[in-house]
Amino acid sequence: MNAEIIAVGSELLLGQIVNTNAKFLSENLAPLGISVYHHTVVGDNKERLLACLQAATSRSNFLLITGGLGPTDDDLTKEVIAEFVELPLVVHQPSLDYIEAYFKRINAPMTPNNKKQALVIEGCEVLENEHGMAPGMFFEKNGIHYLILPGPPREMEPMFKNKAKPFLLQSNNSTVIHSKVMNFFGIGEAALEDRLAYLLKNQTNPTIAPLAKDGFVTLRITANASSYEEANELIDQVVSQIRNDLDEYFFGFDDCTLAQALYDQLFTNRLTIASAESLTGGLFASHLTAIAGAGLVFNGGIVCYTNENKQNLLDIDAHLLQTDGAVSAACAKQLALNVANKLDANIGLSFTGIAGPDTVENKSVGTVFISASLNNETLFVKELSLSGTREQIRIRSVYHGIYQLLKHLS
Amino acid sequence: MNAEIIAVGSELLLGQIVNTNAKFLSENLAPLGISVYHHTVVGDNKERLLACLQAATSRSNFLLITGGLGPTDDDLTKEVIAEFVELPLVVHQPSLDYIEAYFKRINAPMTPNNKKQALVIEGCEVLENEHGMAPGMFFEKNGIHYLILPGPPREMEPMFKNKAKPFLLQSNNSTVIHSKVMNFFGIGEAALEDRLAYLLKNQTNPTIAPLAKDGFVTLRITANASSYEEANELIDQVVSQIRNDLDEYFFGFDDCTLAQALYDQLFTNRLTIASAESLTGGLFASHLTAIAGAGLVFNGGIVCYTNENKQNLLDIDAHLLQTDGAVSAACAKQLALNVANKLDANIGLSFTGIAGPDTVENKSVGTVFISASLNNETLFVKELSLSGTREQIRIRSVYHGIYQLLKHLS
Repeated sequence: MNAEIIAVGSELLLGQIVNTNAKFLSENLAPLGISVYHHTVVGDNKERLLACLQAATSRSNFLLITGGLGPTDDDLTKEVIAEFVELPLVVHQPSLDYIEAYFKRINAPMTPNNKKQALVIEGCEVLENEHGMAPGMFFEKNGIHYLILPGPPREMEPMFKNKAKPFLLQSNNSTVIHSKVMNFFGIGEAALEDRLAYLLKNQTNPTIAPLAKDGFVTLRITANASSYEEANELIDQVVSQIRNDLDEYFFGFDDCTLAQALYDQLFTNRLTIASAESLTGGLFASHLTAIAGAGLVFNGGIVCYTNENKQNLLDIDAHLLQTDGAVSAACAKQLALNVANKLDANIGLSFTGIAGPDTVENKSVGTVFISASLNNETLFVKELSLSGTREQIRIRSVYHGIYQLLKHLS
Repeated sequence: MNAEIIAVGSELLLGQIVNTNAKFLSENLAPLGISVYHHTVVGDNKERLLACLQAATSRSNFLLITGGLGPTDDDLTKEVIAEFVELPLVVHQPSLDYIEAYFKRINAPMTPNNKKQALVIEGCEVLENEHGMAPGMFFEKNGIHYLILPGPPREMEPMFKNKAKPFLLQSNNSTVIHSKVMNFFGIGEAALEDRLAYLLKNQTNPTIAPLAKDGFVTLRITANASSYEEANELIDQVVSQIRNDLDEYFFGFDDCTLAQALYDQLFTNRLTIASAESLTGGLFASHLTAIAGAGLVFNGGIVCYTNENKQNLLDIDAHLLQTDGAVSAACAKQLALNVANKLDANIGLSFTGIAGPDTVENKSVGTVFISASLNNETLFVKELSLSGTREQIRIRSVYHGIYQLLKHLS
């Protein structure tokens, strides 16, 4: 199939939001053997959307259309497509029931414009929206497939994966394309490519595509085969070659985050952790507790943002705070030991440093100390000198802390 | 001018990267009075790019084209445009000198394909690339303006701002377009539009465009006038009309977040805050400490993820935990009072609930209790019944907590 992704929404043309939907869909269509040749963005405007559909149907036989399914007047995607394909809109009762029940539950009046969200193109497959009100649609007309999805990524992404993909797999009987992503931390993209040059040069199936993102590097390994098992086997061979070279930087496959890797490591070894966070202000704890079941490994944390609280809540020596300062190896070390003790955890992990923009204690912005303890012994104290914005320094500190801890535990 | 942004690059169609260039350019064109009606993405393919230029020139008189200016064979943007406008490519000597000097400096051989980067369309304004090798181009042919920019954002963005913008300001002597964004929480998009229907219907200058995003609704108010001051005046009139109706949901302009609004409120009133977080696991603290200077209002927080830590660190009654449970109004109330006390803050804010996917204490996923205290008196206890994923329930709890606190403080 020859696909085109059309995003409808003036907010995209005004630059208020970025079109991540086109990326997500493209990324998910390639493994299904569906080639995307065009992305288009058009505003909430009937004439221009009609012209756009005209152009798209002249060159593509699969249109994925996102956005403009909401309740308000400027949401006109469904109405314009219905007119274009000459099919009526009809009420989808289950969607209407859901919308009415929602307003009842939140005890708010349902304004009439919300009913519009339950309209669908006659005869289409209705795709249930698990995270919002407007359902999606899939249908074929004159040899062209149409997939209509809501605009908000949190609604669109699960709808595509859980509801639309099964239909696409049915209508596309080509070879199997399967891919696996390897995640790395602590090595740059260029250095990684350099170390794998021998592999990247000659590799055609599977292909290996590196991508750098926010301090991480990923390798997407994509194989083409006649069955899923065969594709997987081809991939696994390359994976073990790569792990031979770069295992110290590798932490997980596909959607695995550093926090998830840490959770898995702790859970497997039946270890508990507690955190003492100064510069990261709860960011480590919030990442770990984002994982379902975090309570099994995470005892809790203390966000000790002031020197008083470092003393009162975590018994840091007043003398140490005066001599070495709060941003010091000595303070990080004591924080990690004491928080584990206080919260009765095997591991204590601490973060102290300067996220900026202002300096503290005459130390430069980006100075960070991270320490961990295991069963009342210091496991490491790491000093970093990070660059970037306040938010980058904070999040990178969390990543470095988790990465160091993973390395020391394995 | 009627503009269209064309991105050239198969990596976009494969979903390897997201088209942030289109967002950046759209965002920067609006204030110049240039309307963007289409975004298009096309691969590194001569026929499809030619067809794309044909379509674009039939509907737009300003084409901004990004990507495909590099040295490799698949970089063909310049060559195809030259063919399309029937103008030759010529060597731009300063660019060639720069490229040669670069390879001399890094002491690497200059491969012949690098020379390609110094080719420009005859007669164009050459835009120097301060962060890479391929220059940009600006020219007019048959009443249509072409702006050709490199693909990497770190090269494209400064080139647009520093080199291209001056030309655009010259060729566009129109009116000033200015806009302001109002941020709302606690009201849905449909309900907001319903309440403002009288305004939205008849409003042409300024225009009012609503947008829903992650539980928030924004209104972008855009005025068209002969001066910045006049545009601002038009906007301010509409802003005060809207605030008359919806002030209880409004929390700030433009990039203001809920956390920033809370910080401002606390700072102005010289109040300090401490947090006790169970279900949100540090998420509130991490949002507040993302703001520079957070230490002036935030004393710290306790992530009391287990019942033991609720007892040990925050003196929650064992009896209460047995009768009401940790997920209860009584527990939330005591957490807020005790954390403020313990961390010597004016305000205590607490979060307890069930983020899922598993239930606890026989209470359903999404049950959340939030409480705040001010100077040892309970300010509010709020029970919520939220839906969504684990992460949505956690982040929405934080937003609700901040919003409730803001309402009670003002």
